[in-house]
Amino acid sequence: MELLFQHRSIRQYKDEPIPKKLLNQIIEAGTRASNTGNMQLYSVVATRDAVKKAQLAPLHFNQPMVNQAPVLLTICADINLFNQWCGQRQADAGYNNLLWLMNATIDASLFAQNICVEAESHGLGICYLGTALYNAKEFIEALELPKGVVPITAVVVGYPDQNPPLTERLPLEAVMHDETYADFNKERVEQLFAEKESLASSKQFVAENQKENLAQVFTDVRYKKQDNEFFSAKLLDTLREQGFNL
Amino acid sequence: MELLFQHRSIRQYKDEPIPKKLLNQIIEAGTRASNTGNMQLYSVVATRDAVKKAQLAPLHFNQPMVNQAPVLLTICADINLFNQWCGQRQADAGYNNLLWLMNATIDASLFAQNICVEAESHGLGICYLGTALYNAKEFIEALELPKGVVPITAVVVGYPDQNPPLTERLPLEAVMHDETYADFNKERVEQLFAEKESLASSKQFVAENQKENLAQVFTDVRYKKQDNEFFSAKLLDTLREQGFNL
Repeated sequence: MELLFQHRSIRQYKDEPIPKKLLNQIIEAGTRASNTGNMQLYSVVATRDAVKKAQLAPLHFNQPMVNQAPVLLTICADINLFNQWCGQRQADAGYNNLLWLMNATIDASLFAQNICVEAESHGLGICYLGTALYNAKEFIEALELPKGVVPITAVVVGYPDQNPPLTERLPLEAVMHDETYADFNKERVEQLFAEKESLASSKQFVAENQKENLAQVFTDVRYKKQDNEFFSAKLLDTLREQGFNL
Repeated sequence: MELLFQHRSIRQYKDEPIPKKLLNQIIEAGTRASNTGNMQLYSVVATRDAVKKAQLAPLHFNQPMVNQAPVLLTICADINLFNQWCGQRQADAGYNNLLWLMNATIDASLFAQNICVEAESHGLGICYLGTALYNAKEFIEALELPKGVVPITAVVVGYPDQNPPLTERLPLEAVMHDETYADFNKERVEQLFAEKESLASSKQFVAENQKENLAQVFTDVRYKKQDNEFFSAKLLDTLREQGFNL
């Protein structure tokens, strides 16, 4: 489908609001995605208020599109409503565990992706913000998320004010296996990453960051081990505070 | 988009294969989804061999569409290839932690949902199988998944041999919040679940299972607390065996 193959993340938006009716339709398209047992263990908080966006922007490490895009959607794994319903029906809910955190996270992600596809089908642009997981604790406070609710990703949505090129992907064989997983040997890894490493944008990235190669830009600059471990520990605390037995 | 609003899970398939070229295109559409840092921390194992499907069917609790559908896709969170690349570039990968398990799980889910949307755009039907997480350990063995690779969901794909009705969803207000999360009071929960509980299919479900209400069908029959805790502990072991520090 042309729409999927033409997806780009949009980081510059027009100063043009999204009509509420359209926003509702987009979210409703999200709810049509498959989900575990039709339990709908997800939710979304829509931020349109400029003051609220300004409050959330630092939690997204001040990525400029948070303030610029008309809508910020914080997508959550959510067992709160289902738990409350069970509580009112003498039903013993047992979903505050690893298995259901994962189920709810997957279902919230399918919900998010349908939202993005629907938005793009109306000429809107989107960009995911992975920062929701890094600062889950602070988003919980700012958005008043009750126990059982954890932000897992965020998406900005608005009318695009740029037309960036497609981003490259690894050859299909890097992610697709027939019948069993064909693990990679050293030579195959070299082949699969050759094109990515040879791009002008990759070389510029390496030079700007004064690293030896592209992999080191990821491990030494963008997503460092010590940061990953810090934010993992913080996330685990937050998940426990939200009631998950992990 | 009509396609998203018409999605149903398909559980009966025609005996008709999916051409390899089309299958590749569907997976490629998956790779066009957004992903964290364009690191592509996901993979898919495509099972088309009837013998292999028969081997996997019991791990999916013998859901009949595993054998019947021409293709079974096992979708994985996957840090293996990226780790190998880093290892060959003197780059110190630090992704075997909770934060990146979640990032990879979300990215694998967006990949999966794009695969499903693309498949449906070609007249194919799909059904997610949540069982991948329950028996992750056994799928790892059967599909020879190396360390760093964890199956998070599975999807059967094929030409539909049924046209089931749309499944109901809760009112949009059950999952959508404006600016801050408006937690539910008792009366609101009653309202939000009223229609779902009043459906003939729900009443039949309750009667067949000899329960007092629909919530108890979930908690006492479909997804019991003791089972959830058993499979959570098993999943945690499996994640650790695959190299994640949890």
